[in-house]
Amino acid sequence: MDDNQTGWREQGKPPTLFKRFAFGNYGQTRDFLDALAALAEETGQHPQNINFGTTYVNITLDAEDGKTMGEAERAFAARIDALAAGPG
Amino acid sequence: MDDNQTGWREQGKPPTLFKRFAFGNYGQTRDFLDALAALAEETGQHPQNINFGTTYVNITLDAEDGKTMGEAERAFAARIDALAAGPG
Repeated sequence: MDDNQTGWREQGKPPTLFKRFAFGNYGQTRDFLDALAALAEETGQHPQNINFGTTYVNITLDAEDGKTMGEAERAFAARIDALAAGPG
Repeated sequence: MDDNQTGWREQGKPPTLFKRFAFGNYGQTRDFLDALAALAEETGQHPQNINFGTTYVNITLDAEDGKTMGEAERAFAARIDALAAGPG
């Protein structure tokens, strides 16, 4: 299922949420990765996988219960989106 | 070609060097990733791709000239190995 509103794509079984973030340069990518690490530290939630190069970061989230995507995962995804939006 | 001495595997065309690093917990993984970011900052060399979860980091290095693996790439790989070995 595509979630067109947020850009996170639910796929697989057990389900995962996937999204690709693109950046203009390595500095922006680095800032996002650092913020993401701090967020994981704060929430105790960790993406299943993070795959990055100098100008992109692909993030895969798995379900906390291993079976169903729920509010916790959607909320975590939304907080990641907020990081990519920058410090405002 | 497998390079059994270092654990880095040369593969593909154009060639890349690939190695998987495994860690006992997320804290160790995080320390390695932070050290890797600092190393990239210092040398100006960036892996083509870094793919990680809570307890592993897969690193792919590409050739600086896009064609041939040389001393620069081998030296960078060796410095990454040293990071994984820890601060001593």
